Amino acid sequence: MTKDRRPIQLSPDGAVEILDQTELPHRTVVMRLDDLEDAAEAIEAMRVRGAPLIGATAAWGLALAARRDASDAAIAAAHARLLRTRPTAINLKWALDRMRGRLASLPIESRAEAATAEARAITEEDVALCSAIGDHGLEIFRALLAKKPPGATLNVLTHCNAGRLACVEWGTATAPIYKAQAAGLPIHVWVDETRPRNQGASLTAWELAERGVAHTVVPDNTGGHLMQHGMVDVVIVGTDRTTADGDVCNKIGTYLKALAARDNGVPFYVALPSPTIDFTVADGVVEIPIEERGGEEVSHMRGATEDGRVETVRIVPEGTRVANYGFDVTPARLVTGLVTERGVIPATRAALTAAFPEAARAAGHGAEPGA
Amino acid sequence: MTKDRRPIQLSPDGAVEILDQTELPHRTVVMRLDDLEDAAEAIEAMRVRGAPLIGATAAWGLALAARRDASDAAIAAAHARLLRTRPTAINLKWALDRMRGRLASLPIESRAEAATAEARAITEEDVALCSAIGDHGLEIFRALLAKKPPGATLNVLTHCNAGRLACVEWGTATAPIYKAQAAGLPIHVWVDETRPRNQGASLTAWELAERGVAHTVVPDNTGGHLMQHGMVDVVIVGTDRTTADGDVCNKIGTYLKALAARDNGVPFYVALPSPTIDFTVADGVVEIPIEERGGEEVSHMRGATEDGRVETVRIVPEGTRVANYGFDVTPARLVTGLVTERGVIPATRAALTAAFPEAARAAGHGAEPGA
Repeated sequence: MTKDRRPIQLSPDGAVEILDQTELPHRTVVMRLDDLEDAAEAIEAMRVRGAPLIGATAAWGLALAARRDASDAAIAAAHARLLRTRPTAINLKWALDRMRGRLASLPIESRAEAATAEARAITEEDVALCSAIGDHGLEIFRALLAKKPPGATLNVLTHCNAGRLACVEWGTATAPIYKAQAAGLPIHVWVDETRPRNQGASLTAWELAERGVAHTVVPDNTGGHLMQHGMVDVVIVGTDRTTADGDVCNKIGTYLKALAARDNGVPFYVALPSPTIDFTVADGVVEIPIEERGGEEVSHMRGATEDGRVETVRIVPEGTRVANYGFDVTPARLVTGLVTERGVIPATRAALTAAFPEAARAAGHGAEPGA
Repeated sequence: MTKDRRPIQLSPDGAVEILDQTELPHRTVVMRLDDLEDAAEAIEAMRVRGAPLIGATAAWGLALAARRDASDAAIAAAHARLLRTRPTAINLKWALDRMRGRLASLPIESRAEAATAEARAITEEDVALCSAIGDHGLEIFRALLAKKPPGATLNVLTHCNAGRLACVEWGTATAPIYKAQAAGLPIHVWVDETRPRNQGASLTAWELAERGVAHTVVPDNTGGHLMQHGMVDVVIVGTDRTTADGDVCNKIGTYLKALAARDNGVPFYVALPSPTIDFTVADGVVEIPIEERGGEEVSHMRGATEDGRVETVRIVPEGTRVANYGFDVTPARLVTGLVTERGVIPATRAALTAAFPEAARAAGHGAEPGA
């Protein structure tokens, strides 16, 4: 049973333990991170993934380093090592800078303890943030359900894994789902498979099953048909980056679901913790560079054989050229609302700046008179 | 080498041979159909698939039956057996009725030879029809290419396999692609993987490679991103059923690509032989029942291991509920044009009725004064 296990947590003896997500859903493997190098490898190998979880893991990696050697040189080296693991994840740098800043002014002998406390704080803050997103999203779900006949089930569609496996607890897009489940609302989730890495089929399905949330995995091609036939009440997804104008960069294929939602009058929400807002970028399609990943994620598929082995098979003709774009951008005009820790707001510059004035100011936006 | 082999053809000694498409792209297996039962099994097991190819195979199955016993009773039994194989394929019944009608008035002793001649005619007519679609589609491609800078490549996106493997030669959506290749036009095809059965990754990629057409397989999630970035000049797909109002029922996920094309000003064409027009149906979303297929197509994936074995692996958690809708409907408003054997026409009732008056009349449409 892993129902109450977080994707990163402390063992009773103070060691850091992660759930190795590369083994899911076929095997549940808990891995102990003993030192800095273990933490770095876990991020690099995507044993942990999802921006908030990467940030938390990096914080714990720095804490593990500080337990062995808390000198300025050792802390700087650990910061550099961890920062190299996934250069594009926003929360990684944020968490590492925060850890280093916290330790810099302390005497060396008290740094190990302070690092553990700070990593714990970063972890718990993420939980609180996702919980708040869940509370605001739950109100949306309640309102949608109130418009349906008594006893009807709310059908939610989600893409990729913006779940508790991407965070520490609750998740972002899944937080309202878990809150609804806890509140006894009748809810069912359409889980997009999310090719090519299959995070929906392998991770979201796994975590929803663990928490007993009714769900059905569908190929990514299916959502439009479901919406045409009134089988989806609301779409909610996560985001890797939200621009100052409200464009949303998320897992490849999100844009197609947003188009289908608009064409069928289905509300399309994006759940996000404020650190994913990038006030330095306005037009997502033009300005956000889209990561191209290795072709083997498209050409090969990993799964379990009938006799329980885990095998990787090639699903295209040998030598076939494939392309693997990791993300796409959903223009703000297709977004019904942004579900943030400070409430549900329109996907507009005015609303984002009003809700997060300190972040907008830090990026040089929103504070000018007449702006 | 299978470059010049059709998915169904006669061997030099007069036997019927098919390419077993369930083995593609990992193995090229030619299978000999010796009798009626072989032909029926090949359709049922989807060793041959695609409406035109199913029709041709059924015709050959009836011819094989007539070679053994050409009595009225035997022909009727063969007709019934073949009709049971795939009850939804339009061309199946059309081909079988045509074969039976051709033989009914003939003396028994001349039926075997006539059946072979009629099956050959059905096969060759399909080739001519697809070739005409290719010629009309080629003109669209030429016009689009003329708007690009000199030397630029035309980027075509297609979904599923409406290729020569679905027909006898040329294919429908692929016919203009092969004609363009033959005419020396610089062309590149984005091949949607087409989950869950992966007809794009396994069949379209295979046949384009065989004919030397440049192509790249992408996850179904990718098309919107490609179109946002000007990387698709035209979308062309096939169809399983076209309504009198021009709605297009095709492989699940087609609708999402049509939405993305519309949102990005990319022309979206549907290639179809006139037998796929159903003048008895108007609103595709409301009236066309969508086939739900077995869940194992979603939950399991077949491919080749590194050491050359073909394995099937489960890609969702054990016991996960999945849904598998085979088709969706693209409303006529999203279709730039229908590429038929009689030219490129708008996806409207007026245009369809004008282009195919005999079919419209047969269905009780289009011939009334003032209509």
